Amino acid sequence: MTEIFAFGLGLARYSARGAMLDCFFPQPVLQPRGEVLQAIAELPAGTSNINADQAQAIDQAVGGGIAGTTFADATRKLVAVRLDTDAAIADTAEAYLKLHLLSHRLCLPNSLNLDGIFAHLPNVAWTSVGPIAIEELPEAITKAHLNHQQLEVFAVDKFPKMVNYVVPTGVRIADASRIRLGAYLGDGTTVMHEGFVNFNAGALGPNMVEGRISQGVTLGSGSDLGGSASTMGTLSGGGNINISIGENCLIGANAGTGIPLGDRCTIEAGLYITAGMGISLVDEFGEVMSTVKARELAGKSDMLFIRDSQNGNIVCRTNRKAIELNDQLHQHN
Amino acid sequence: MTEIFAFGLGLARYSARGAMLDCFFPQPVLQPRGEVLQAIAELPAGTSNINADQAQAIDQAVGGGIAGTTFADATRKLVAVRLDTDAAIADTAEAYLKLHLLSHRLCLPNSLNLDGIFAHLPNVAWTSVGPIAIEELPEAITKAHLNHQQLEVFAVDKFPKMVNYVVPTGVRIADASRIRLGAYLGDGTTVMHEGFVNFNAGALGPNMVEGRISQGVTLGSGSDLGGSASTMGTLSGGGNINISIGENCLIGANAGTGIPLGDRCTIEAGLYITAGMGISLVDEFGEVMSTVKARELAGKSDMLFIRDSQNGNIVCRTNRKAIELNDQLHQHN
Amino acid sequence: MTEIFAFGLGLARYSARGAMLDCFFPQPVLQPRGEVLQAIAELPAGTSNINADQAQAIDQAVGGGIAGTTFADATRKLVAVRLDTDAAIADTAEAYLKLHLLSHRLCLPNSLNLDGIFAHLPNVAWTSVGPIAIEELPEAITKAHLNHQQLEVFAVDKFPKMVNYVVPTGVRIADASRIRLGAYLGDGTTVMHEGFVNFNAGALGPNMVEGRISQGVTLGSGSDLGGSASTMGTLSGGGNINISIGENCLIGANAGTGIPLGDRCTIEAGLYITAGMGISLVDEFGEVMSTVKARELAGKSDMLFIRDSQNGNIVCRTNRKAIELNDQLHQHN
Repeated sequence: MTEIFAFGLGLARYSARGAMLDCFFPQPVLQPRGEVLQAIAELPAGTSNINADQAQAIDQAVGGGIAGTTFADATRKLVAVRLDTDAAIADTAEAYLKLHLLSHRLCLPNSLNLDGIFAHLPNVAWTSVGPIAIEELPEAITKAHLNHQQLEVFAVDKFPKMVNYVVPTGVRIADASRIRLGAYLGDGTTVMHEGFVNFNAGALGPNMVEGRISQGVTLGSGSDLGGSASTMGTLSGGGNINISIGENCLIGANAGTGIPLGDRCTIEAGLYITAGMGISLVDEFGEVMSTVKARELAGKSDMLFIRDSQNGNIVCRTNRKAIELNDQLHQHN
Repeated sequence: MTEIFAFGLGLARYSARGAMLDCFFPQPVLQPRGEVLQAIAELPAGTSNINADQAQAIDQAVGGGIAGTTFADATRKLVAVRLDTDAAIADTAEAYLKLHLLSHRLCLPNSLNLDGIFAHLPNVAWTSVGPIAIEELPEAITKAHLNHQQLEVFAVDKFPKMVNYVVPTGVRIADASRIRLGAYLGDGTTVMHEGFVNFNAGALGPNMVEGRISQGVTLGSGSDLGGSASTMGTLSGGGNINISIGENCLIGANAGTGIPLGDRCTIEAGLYITAGMGISLVDEFGEVMSTVKARELAGKSDMLFIRDSQNGNIVCRTNRKAIELNDQLHQHN
Repeated sequence: MTEIFAFGLGLARYSARGAMLDCFFPQPVLQPRGEVLQAIAELPAGTSNINADQAQAIDQAVGGGIAGTTFADATRKLVAVRLDTDAAIADTAEAYLKLHLLSHRLCLPNSLNLDGIFAHLPNVAWTSVGPIAIEELPEAITKAHLNHQQLEVFAVDKFPKMVNYVVPTGVRIADASRIRLGAYLGDGTTVMHEGFVNFNAGALGPNMVEGRISQGVTLGSGSDLGGSASTMGTLSGGGNINISIGENCLIGANAGTGIPLGDRCTIEAGLYITAGMGISLVDEFGEVMSTVKARELAGKSDMLFIRDSQNGNIVCRTNRKAIELNDQLHQHN
């Protein structure tokens, strides 16, 4: 039997008009083997609706706890998603399966093919009675008022929040509305109220996250992202540099970075490093070595960025070894 | 028949003591004409309670979908609000109607007379069972505990969140708790988790909003407000300058502005421009033209604000034509 | 009868496995006297489960409105917490009682012994059906999907949000998810959407809070904390200086402080003062008096901090009297 990339047995919800709104996979599987592989062998590739009997057999292998489910309601269905390869996303259920793979820590950010995700995720109203199609929302709000019910609308977005689908072990999340499904939160990670983690982004753990982890950005083990600290994303403003922050870094409150950082780097509170900035490199003896564009420091370790409070000069303190200055770097002085 | 400024047929909710807590207008009407005007001709000006029969006729004309409603519950009533002119707000229902006009995109921010709005909006606990009067809240919390129910309190505020009343078409709102009723969100606007829009403020659309749009502030078409970017409001700190941001601007993450901007302006990430700051004007050839107070640049287009990372000098790069330097401007050097 | 530090009659919720998840005290009492003291005299010190009859007598004295409660459900119990002294926290109920004392304004931040609070607060999923033990959450999410119910998970945290337990009088809270139980909000305080108040931290009132009040930090009467302004906490990054902000201060939007401030201080928008920064002291005549480390200005009044927009120099404008310069301060020039 050929190798399969990923599989999920899910519960999908639909609009009154029959459009899939979301799909919940209690137990997604990466590279299914053995019993699971056997149970799904005869399923077609991609997304398929299955009946309760089929689900029973698969669920037994997968262990998702949804065996024996029979949905009389047309707005809910059992679906099986078999991704034979990590190809571009072809429908809503596939998009949801990939987001689940990330939040279940089965795949790291930037390791999945997410092409087509925006096209295949519908914009949905996430409410206290579950997802509602946007076009059906005004009537739902009015009906709730007439029926003396409170319809709470939490978001109108393509991405739902993670914790309604997946709660990884060993994390604290102070305000769950700020973590999208598809975020990767490693063990030992605390996301405070001001923290934010986009889909396909994450904290590898353990981390203290009080700032914003943009799409595509990862925070290495032991690093702290201070309150309201910003990491430039690849979706907006960050251009073509993919930001990552290494291990044991400290990004101060209200600070930010537009360049990737290696390990043991610090940016002082309130300082935003953008890729095009000129930075004065100072060695361990306080000597200015050269002035370089910040982007030339991308990915290097043991850097301390501060803005000199006497003259406004943005300085990177490090040691010659840490920066591993090369000739090209020196030429910019 | 004389012209009428605005009309709304609404469903109001009341405290146990009979104070109006909120009022929902499914279909507010600006300058009613024809059938609607006829249906409301005999109503008194201002807010009036109406019965189901009256509502039936009006609703048919307005199209709000609340026809035939009969409320046995004393905590809910049908109200009609007829604003003959855009006068100061006289009661809670009028305040809600004006907030609906803004969020329904029937009126632009700063175009309505909102005098009296704070006085006429009660401070309300917004909960999972609807609005509760503050003084009735402690008992409600205790009762919920005794009845094994979870009473979730989302906010204690004069303004409710927009999406529980109005969801304009073509928008995405990642965290609905950050958009107040009375916000104006134009078609094609995405408000990310860190975005915020106050009442009487808005994004004309399409926009990417990841920062805070304060009361009275508007963001022009095609402009991006970066993560945690700040716009000074008129309610606090902004003094008497009314901030607006023109079209196709980019306010960087963690940046801010205390002056209005014209079109195609950029503020680099992390830089806050306040009205009283001295700014070095640099022309398209890199030549310093003069140093001016930021407030003298208010509303001008094609400006790029950066802080020189070598010497801390805040610089506005532009071209002579864009700034249209006048004599007064030069005198400040 | 000996003096007792504090008492609370509470309703506790438990996991299916019998671990206490939270405890709600409708009417906590500091230093109980008279009738209350009598009613609790025979209770053991610390936390005890009591029956409906015992609760009846105590509740009558305390006035919490939970008299006559009989819980058939094993996941809910009546508990009495008698803290004879302000000792280290010994269990979950004691932790909750102390958090209630703070939010009920019975104790000021930094006045209570909170040792052991992290150890004794379980990490809990705060959901639309109440608290759920983390290990029981995945099954609960799956069950909700199978039962066509929406289980909304608001947070996964040791601390719940304040307003589900206590809503102090005279406050507005635009986004309740950002105020932890144990926050102290004085009368006349408004916390806007971007505001945040941790446990054992607070605004003494009246205040406008649009920034983050970290653990251990207090904001004096009449002070404004601007949008996204940061106060360094003692838990992370703030080291051993305990930050407080005096009366009538203004911390600008996107600004921050790593030193405590006295009264009538201002930090301009976008400027972050850290303890180790060199600051140029300028007197009321614009004369530079000296350059000092920011930490030497800790707690002083009448200071205005700005960053000179021409040369990047961070300046503290004040008058000689306000700063009360001492010899030690001058030696650092």
